[in-house]
Amino acid sequence: MPCRIFVWVARMKICQVEGTLVATARIGSLENRRLLVVKERGSSGKQVAVDPVGCKPGDWVIAVGSSAARDAAGSKDYPSDLTIVGIIDYWDDSSGKAGAQ
Amino acid sequence: MPCRIFVWVARMKICQVEGTLVATARIGSLENRRLLVVKERGSSGKQVAVDPVGCKPGDWVIAVGSSAARDAAGSKDYPSDLTIVGIIDYWDDSSGKAGAQ
Amino acid sequence: MPCRIFVWVARMKICQVEGTLVATARIGSLENRRLLVVKERGSSGKQVAVDPVGCKPGDWVIAVGSSAARDAAGSKDYPSDLTIVGIIDYWDDSSGKAGAQ
Amino acid sequence: MPCRIFVWVARMKICQVEGTLVATARIGSLENRRLLVVKERGSSGKQVAVDPVGCKPGDWVIAVGSSAARDAAGSKDYPSDLTIVGIIDYWDDSSGKAGAQ
Amino acid sequence: MPCRIFVWVARMKICQVEGTLVATARIGSLENRRLLVVKERGSSGKQVAVDPVGCKPGDWVIAVGSSAARDAAGSKDYPSDLTIVGIIDYWDDSSGKAGAQ
Repeated sequence: MPCRIFVWVARMKICQVEGTLVATARIGSLENRRLLVVKERGSSGKQVAVDPVGCKPGDWVIAVGSSAARDAAGSKDYPSDLTIVGIIDYWDDSSGKAGAQ
Repeated sequence: MPCRIFVWVARMKICQVEGTLVATARIGSLENRRLLVVKERGSSGKQVAVDPVGCKPGDWVIAVGSSAARDAAGSKDYPSDLTIVGIIDYWDDSSGKAGAQ
Repeated sequence: MPCRIFVWVARMKICQVEGTLVATARIGSLENRRLLVVKERGSSGKQVAVDPVGCKPGDWVIAVGSSAARDAAGSKDYPSDLTIVGIIDYWDDSSGKAGAQ
Repeated sequence: MPCRIFVWVARMKICQVEGTLVATARIGSLENRRLLVVKERGSSGKQVAVDPVGCKPGDWVIAVGSSAARDAAGSKDYPSDLTIVGIIDYWDDSSGKAGAQ
Repeated sequence: MPCRIFVWVARMKICQVEGTLVATARIGSLENRRLLVVKERGSSGKQVAVDPVGCKPGDWVIAVGSSAARDAAGSKDYPSDLTIVGIIDYWDDSSGKAGAQ
C-alpha cells in the first residue's frame, strides 16, 4: 500500500564502524583503499564507507556523502559516495546522554 | 517486511541547533571549522552541520546539502554535505503558527 | 524499531507555495534572493526554496534540487539545493483529476 | 511520532509515463523541452521528468537523477534533476514476472 | 496520512544482481553498456545499475551513486547515477552472519 511521507535525510552522518569489507574484483579507480561496513546511530541499517582516517571497529565517526565524499577520499575522481572524515570524541545531546562513549 | 513508499526529501531545510560536536582526529581538509549537531523541525533525528554563520544552541536555521554545502562552507573542496546558510527570523506558516519563535 | 523500506525520492517536484521566510543573518553568497516556504503535493512537509520566477502564495510550481538548483538560482556558486523553475498551468493525472487548479 | 528507519533510495529508476505537464511561466534555461509526469513502478507517487527520448503515455522508461540528469537533458547547464534516458523493452524479474509488458 | 520520519539513506550500497534489462530506444550517451536489475540487501526493492565490472546474476556487489557513478561508468559525461564498482568476497557482520556467501 503506497503512502506519502515527508522525510529528513541525514547528510553529515554520525555512524559506528562495524568491520571490514573485502572486494577483490573492483574497478581500477577504487584502488586498494580500505572499505568499512558502518552502521548509523539508532538503526540497524548497514552500508559501505571509504576510510582515509584509520578507524577501528566500534569507533563513532562522521561520514559525508555526495560529491564531498570524493574529495574526502583523496581526489575528485575517486568513486566513493560515503567517506569517513573524522572520529568523534563526544557530542552534546539535548536528551542528556553523553554521545559517542 | 519491505514495502514501497513515496517520499519527499527535504533539501533546503529548516532545523534547530542542538549543540557542538568534537572530533579531533579528522582529515586535513575539514580544518578546524565548527561542527554542530542539528535537529530538523518536527522530528527527533539528529545530524552534523558545518557552521560558517555563527549560531548558538536553540537557533532555527536554514541548512543546504549536496554540492551547495561545499561552497557555502567556504570552498568547492570543503568536505561538507550539510552547511548552515542563514539564521531564520520568522516564516509564514499556513497552519497559523508563527515560525521559529 | 528500525526497519528497511524501499523508497522513491521525488526529484523534479510538484509543490505549492505557502509563504515567505525571513532570514537576515545569512552568508554573503545567499544575497538578497527571495526564500519561500513550499509544501509538496499530497503531504504536510515543508521546506525552503529559492524563487527566481516570481511566485505568489498558492501557486503550484516545479522545483529542482541537487546541482541543478544552483544554476537555476542564477549561478553555479549559488548555495541553493531547491529552486523553483516554473509555475504549473496544469498537468495530466491518470486518476482523472485536473492538476494544479 | 518520529521514528528512524533505514531506506534504500532508487537511483536509476524504472518508471511509467503518465502524461504531459504544462508550465508556461518558467526560467529561460528550461527552454521548451517536453516535461512529463511519471510514476514509479509499484507506487502511486508522481514526479516530473524531462523527456529527450520521445515517450508516449504508458511507456516504461529508465530515468536518471542527480548531475547525470543534466547532461542527459542536453547540457551540463540544463536545470533538470530527473531525465528519461531509455525506453525499456523488457527486464528479468526474479519473481517470475516478465517486466514492462 | 502524511507523517515525518528520520531516514538514513544508503550510499555505497551492498546489493545483489538479479538479471539484465533491455532498452533499445535510449539516448546516445548511454552507449551500449550493460544494464542490470539489482536488489538491495534485506529488501525487495529493485533498481537499475550500469555494470563495468562484469557481474553475473546472484553476485553481491558494491554500487555507488551520485556523481561518483558517472566516473565509475567510464567518463564524467556518462548518464548513470548507479554504477557497480566491485564484487564482494565477504564482509564482517556484527550479527555473526558471514556476509555475501
